[in-house]
Amino acid sequence: MPVGTQATVKTLSPDELEQIGAQIILGNTYHLYLRPGQELINQAGGLHQFMNWQRPILTDSGGYQVFSLADLNKVKIEGVRFQSHLDGSYHFFSPESVVEIQRKLGSDIMMVLDECTTYPCTLDQAIESNRITLDWAKRSLNEYLNSEPLYGHDQTLFAIVQGSTYEEVRRQSAAALVEMDFPGYAVGGLSVGEPKQAMFEMTKICTEILPGKKPRYLMGVGKPEDLVEAIGLGIDMFDCVMPTRNGRKGTVFTRNGSLVVKNASHKDDFSPIDPECQCYACQNFTRAYLRHLFKAEEILGMRLASLHNLYFYLELMKQARKAILDDRYSSWKKEFLEQYFSNASDIIEDNNTKNDS
Amino acid sequence: MPVGTQATVKTLSPDELEQIGAQIILGNTYHLYLRPGQELINQAGGLHQFMNWQRPILTDSGGYQVFSLADLNKVKIEGVRFQSHLDGSYHFFSPESVVEIQRKLGSDIMMVLDECTTYPCTLDQAIESNRITLDWAKRSLNEYLNSEPLYGHDQTLFAIVQGSTYEEVRRQSAAALVEMDFPGYAVGGLSVGEPKQAMFEMTKICTEILPGKKPRYLMGVGKPEDLVEAIGLGIDMFDCVMPTRNGRKGTVFTRNGSLVVKNASHKDDFSPIDPECQCYACQNFTRAYLRHLFKAEEILGMRLASLHNLYFYLELMKQARKAILDDRYSSWKKEFLEQYFSNASDIIEDNNTKNDS
Repeated sequence: MPVGTQATVKTLSPDELEQIGAQIILGNTYHLYLRPGQELINQAGGLHQFMNWQRPILTDSGGYQVFSLADLNKVKIEGVRFQSHLDGSYHFFSPESVVEIQRKLGSDIMMVLDECTTYPCTLDQAIESNRITLDWAKRSLNEYLNSEPLYGHDQTLFAIVQGSTYEEVRRQSAAALVEMDFPGYAVGGLSVGEPKQAMFEMTKICTEILPGKKPRYLMGVGKPEDLVEAIGLGIDMFDCVMPTRNGRKGTVFTRNGSLVVKNASHKDDFSPIDPECQCYACQNFTRAYLRHLFKAEEILGMRLASLHNLYFYLELMKQARKAILDDRYSSWKKEFLEQYFSNASDIIEDNNTKNDS
Repeated sequence: MPVGTQATVKTLSPDELEQIGAQIILGNTYHLYLRPGQELINQAGGLHQFMNWQRPILTDSGGYQVFSLADLNKVKIEGVRFQSHLDGSYHFFSPESVVEIQRKLGSDIMMVLDECTTYPCTLDQAIESNRITLDWAKRSLNEYLNSEPLYGHDQTLFAIVQGSTYEEVRRQSAAALVEMDFPGYAVGGLSVGEPKQAMFEMTKICTEILPGKKPRYLMGVGKPEDLVEAIGLGIDMFDCVMPTRNGRKGTVFTRNGSLVVKNASHKDDFSPIDPECQCYACQNFTRAYLRHLFKAEEILGMRLASLHNLYFYLELMKQARKAILDDRYSSWKKEFLEQYFSNASDIIEDNNTKNDS
């Protein structure tokens, strides 16, 4: 899912997202609640109407943002009090209010409010946080079952497994949520600084418990190689700011690894980002031109790199899906990774893969 | 002509420019010479290839930029020495070198190097500056006639009338250039701070002398009402950064005047910028959404406002052309201006209408 934090996938138009085959995008409840507010979006006829995107939207619950962006957040069993990162004003999210906000946004997939532990945290903290998250999940489900969609289309609700890097807490969290019978499940609280191995171990523990017939969504992940690994563990959905954020900084992905297109080595390189890629950027522009746009700080550079990167990610997901259907996922994955790491790939700038701002 | 200072019309793709019917765009020799350099553009196969724009391009000579942007410019009869505004490095433009650079850029319409007087200037300064400009025009024409295009398509060369706001100097300048028999003519040195009335008086003096069968181009003008007035005086071509620059700042043009779409008054205004406009922005998005994008500093807002404004300007030119062909230009102009000023229109931020940066 391309990330559209503030009711727009940064630099791109809805038309372009449709053209590259985006089936669903993500919006952020925390950001939209603060600006422009769910009441305005409600007046506009919902988020689809407001931003002119007719395909599905998933909205994050705001849980992650409250704990990472907002100031002075204070969790009680009733909910979480926080200060806006925009103007310092005080706000309160409860499991019920977050469902209510998402009803007004009109997203197709709503997420429950969860408490995200920081990494690292103690076992006691993870247990306590999971206790709150499970209580909130139950209350979210109640609110969901006792409220109606506002715009004539169904809305569904996904739960979020927490438990930090503690196997037993993850298992308890996943099992309790399966018991509540949600329409879909997310694995949260990962890609927050833990070792890569721990991320995959926790993902595996979750997908072993979460039903394979329901969608399983790994939140905020990640690099192409991470997606490919997680799909092998049973994950169906991802969101990540990497294609758009890295694109805006001049890093582009190719099947031979990522590269920093604004580097001097591309000064007179008149080949496209990826000669085999069918996206508008690769079909029409050279690395030399893209480098010029980035050096001259021209917005078209950010647009073309974002477009290409999302196209690359969506193509990667298409290929993975096909490999699964052809029953050759393991060999496809091996081939992809070998080619992707065949060149020394440039360094990705950072690992904070949530909130595209 | 939409302004594409640095080999891109800011925020927009070549596809979008074609879709809104742009027939020709402008590039800036001064900017392209400094970055990425005409040698790199030559390696790319010319400016059309480099930026993937197949329709005509006019390149400004760099004269205006040398006198407005560069530091410590020093004019001699041989040419002008200046320091780059980017890194302070020293450079020298002569009439001959500027034609040579534009040969490498491969623009369809090249402009002669001219000396732009500041406003106000004394009569003596205007006379001396005109003397240099006429000498440079003759040398440019010689260089043009004794060099060849590099990319298999013809290039033409326009002269530039100077003379500040002195009628007699303008007349001498125009007559001498007509004598040299250029393929087209521009009126330069206006829209640089002089009163509006003086701008139109000088334009009229020029168009009375410049042949009506050749293209006449008023450089760096202007507001919609200025274009409409100048067309009445015989002008055929314009370039101006106003549609794109003002768009990026959140000011949009409508047939009922301009408006600042990011103003609070549009917070819950779910109508398009202009209900009668057929552009992508007006057909798909509301003022409320555009305001949100500007408040949230999202690039899509700048894109949509730039696209709409260029569409508005191009439509205005289409209508003016039709009115001329229908032999009803005066009445059309009156109707347009009455509607355009029917509401108190918002204030346009500034009057520096050259260099879109």
